[in-house]
Amino acid sequence: VSPLVSWEGFPILMPTFEDCPIAITTDFGADSAYVGVMRGVILSINPKATIVDHTHSVPSYDVLAGAVLLRQSYHYFPSSIHLVVIDPGVGSSRRPLLLITEKYAFVGPDNGLFTPICESEKPWVIELNQERFFRSPVSRTFHGRDIFAPVAAHLSLGVAPETLGRQIVDMVTLEIPTPRVVEGSVAGTILRVDKFGNLVTNMTPATLGEARISRDDLVMRIGDQVVQKWVESYAEADPGVAIILLGSSGLLEISVNQGSAAELLRASAYEAVFAYRKPG
Amino acid sequence: VSPLVSWEGFPILMPTFEDCPIAITTDFGADSAYVGVMRGVILSINPKATIVDHTHSVPSYDVLAGAVLLRQSYHYFPSSIHLVVIDPGVGSSRRPLLLITEKYAFVGPDNGLFTPICESEKPWVIELNQERFFRSPVSRTFHGRDIFAPVAAHLSLGVAPETLGRQIVDMVTLEIPTPRVVEGSVAGTILRVDKFGNLVTNMTPATLGEARISRDDLVMRIGDQVVQKWVESYAEADPGVAIILLGSSGLLEISVNQGSAAELLRASAYEAVFAYRKPG
Amino acid sequence: VSPLVSWEGFPILMPTFEDCPIAITTDFGADSAYVGVMRGVILSINPKATIVDHTHSVPSYDVLAGAVLLRQSYHYFPSSIHLVVIDPGVGSSRRPLLLITEKYAFVGPDNGLFTPICESEKPWVIELNQERFFRSPVSRTFHGRDIFAPVAAHLSLGVAPETLGRQIVDMVTLEIPTPRVVEGSVAGTILRVDKFGNLVTNMTPATLGEARISRDDLVMRIGDQVVQKWVESYAEADPGVAIILLGSSGLLEISVNQGSAAELLRASAYEAVFAYRKPG
Repeated sequence: VSPLVSWEGFPILMPTFEDCPIAITTDFGADSAYVGVMRGVILSINPKATIVDHTHSVPSYDVLAGAVLLRQSYHYFPSSIHLVVIDPGVGSSRRPLLLITEKYAFVGPDNGLFTPICESEKPWVIELNQERFFRSPVSRTFHGRDIFAPVAAHLSLGVAPETLGRQIVDMVTLEIPTPRVVEGSVAGTILRVDKFGNLVTNMTPATLGEARISRDDLVMRIGDQVVQKWVESYAEADPGVAIILLGSSGLLEISVNQGSAAELLRASAYEAVFAYRKPG
Repeated sequence: VSPLVSWEGFPILMPTFEDCPIAITTDFGADSAYVGVMRGVILSINPKATIVDHTHSVPSYDVLAGAVLLRQSYHYFPSSIHLVVIDPGVGSSRRPLLLITEKYAFVGPDNGLFTPICESEKPWVIELNQERFFRSPVSRTFHGRDIFAPVAAHLSLGVAPETLGRQIVDMVTLEIPTPRVVEGSVAGTILRVDKFGNLVTNMTPATLGEARISRDDLVMRIGDQVVQKWVESYAEADPGVAIILLGSSGLLEISVNQGSAAELLRASAYEAVFAYRKPG
Repeated sequence: VSPLVSWEGFPILMPTFEDCPIAITTDFGADSAYVGVMRGVILSINPKATIVDHTHSVPSYDVLAGAVLLRQSYHYFPSSIHLVVIDPGVGSSRRPLLLITEKYAFVGPDNGLFTPICESEKPWVIELNQERFFRSPVSRTFHGRDIFAPVAAHLSLGVAPETLGRQIVDMVTLEIPTPRVVEGSVAGTILRVDKFGNLVTNMTPATLGEARISRDDLVMRIGDQVVQKWVESYAEADPGVAIILLGSSGLLEISVNQGSAAELLRASAYEAVFAYRKPG
């Protein structure tokens, strides 16, 4: 941890991230040469950097999906630098950001990606404006390569976060869909569909508790498709039948054992999903 | 190597895996945030772990495909910890396993994945039951994150395998398709289709020897499609024509130079494939 | 750097690549067990090797696409060993190669992959013929595993490049499409389509300068589809509308903000693209 700083109102110890792994999240696809180039840029600045892929399967341009995936995963990493590039606004006036919490640094565009981080933590938010830490020249189309990867690499060398920019208080935020609850009924959203076709909702066991719906009474509906079997694990369900269970990220999921709920129910991300009590 | 142990019948030197790379095999897809989270969990326990991807392209839920790919690849790695998660039975009573050979540790579910390892090696088989080496709480849906990745990470720190569980002798096994041979004829199976559309069979040159079929006389049939040209390398074949050759894993393959045999012959994994002598 | 050598006409200091990262480029797909096996082979030879993925999304068998991607990316890496396997001629008489520049080593097949490297640099070109640095036996179908990965690993251990083979002067080259320019008009080619559906052409701002076409007057045509809006960044364009901009690799791209130009214009790699002045 760096010495006490008194810089633009930063009142206390600002952590540093020397030797911390750089975890990359993008919408580029795992195969992408764009990710490869970012890895090269990082190693050019810090040859000893530990680079680790979080995921590159965020749907193209889908900032909300990136925000949701980051929220679900970031805390499984040790003290890390999360390099996050879902950036449809690259080259516009949207600002490049650095968020600092006690354990993590987040580097990426100011487009709402970090909204959930600000709900679960109280980060310092810094606008990156020190061009000496960027590649030169900075392109108008690939700040992952020219700004974000270089800044992440410099952080992993131990550069103090407060030297990278200026504190801001007006970070762009995104509306993250939250379930609306009334007694006996919840109106929620499918947050994402994973590779297995599991439909990850934005409801938790607490949501059901608030709505006073027990697992035994639970019915979920997507469009005209109804699912009403709660199980504790995929294997409890008969293959091919849609069920509801508590997924690994603490959210309720609609799944099909050894099949795809997305296909069976013809459902996709951001569709509405309703929970209510079994009638009768 | 750890000192001589005399634990539940382990009679001899039990190897340890300090500083060995952790090679990951899953059916999650390379892009998957699930793999990213497993990487984060490993680094949280052992920040110096070497994490290396074997493959994440095992078809969803296909334990047999995982077993086959693992058999074909594991020995190309140096002394390693193979972390293998193809786990449709997660959360059920299926046991979490650790297999130990002189050179390798295998961590994964007790669902048959490790059948071929027990054919080529004589591993100790350990049921993982020491919860202090798991994440807490353990979810019912993601043991890759909560049990297998943490155990692999602890092994890479040098934790002695015998402290992780108890020896068992009733590991679940899977029937791995083997070719049936009679004089002049073999009934085999397509084990897998690779990214290039190559059809990897379960026959070897020894299989043909046993059936007394020479390469010059060889004919293979899948459904009503017949292939009868043996070549030594893809490049010997005319583009677009199906041929038979010895693949890199020592198995006979049906391939198309610069094309896809799977598409041309409309064939897929687990279909029957027959070999016999050219008539006349 | 190794001492002065005088070997088959190598007149000056030959660099070595001890501890340099090994950056892998293939057409195997990111998920591929073939890449996993190459990683295992590298770690078997050099357990401390830094392995970094450039990209595995080169279209199957497409040597030209591999050459183009490598040219666009290789220089973003620090001093590195580029291990490049797009190899439809594996097992034929095509030679295995090592190219050495001041900063980089390139290992891969002699099929034209390295043509652009020889345009931008003046590498030593070495035919790999020292079998003691290969795996044994060498298969006829997977030199990535048996020749190229082992040689890359040995280079990362500090083996002197000049001990790995003999200098040659007749490397296979490939015709890389270059734009044909006349006053007011350019006939070019779409070099590749990225994951976002951006169409990367082989034209640069200098090409337009040569043809005396200003950005304001620029029209591009693919088949019967015409695009005539120049923007500085994706975000300047209305979503869904095709635009032209300067891509991150210094080439002109046709793109759709938050959409796919490839889909909108039904265009694909290697199609002709024309640039000319807006009439009137």
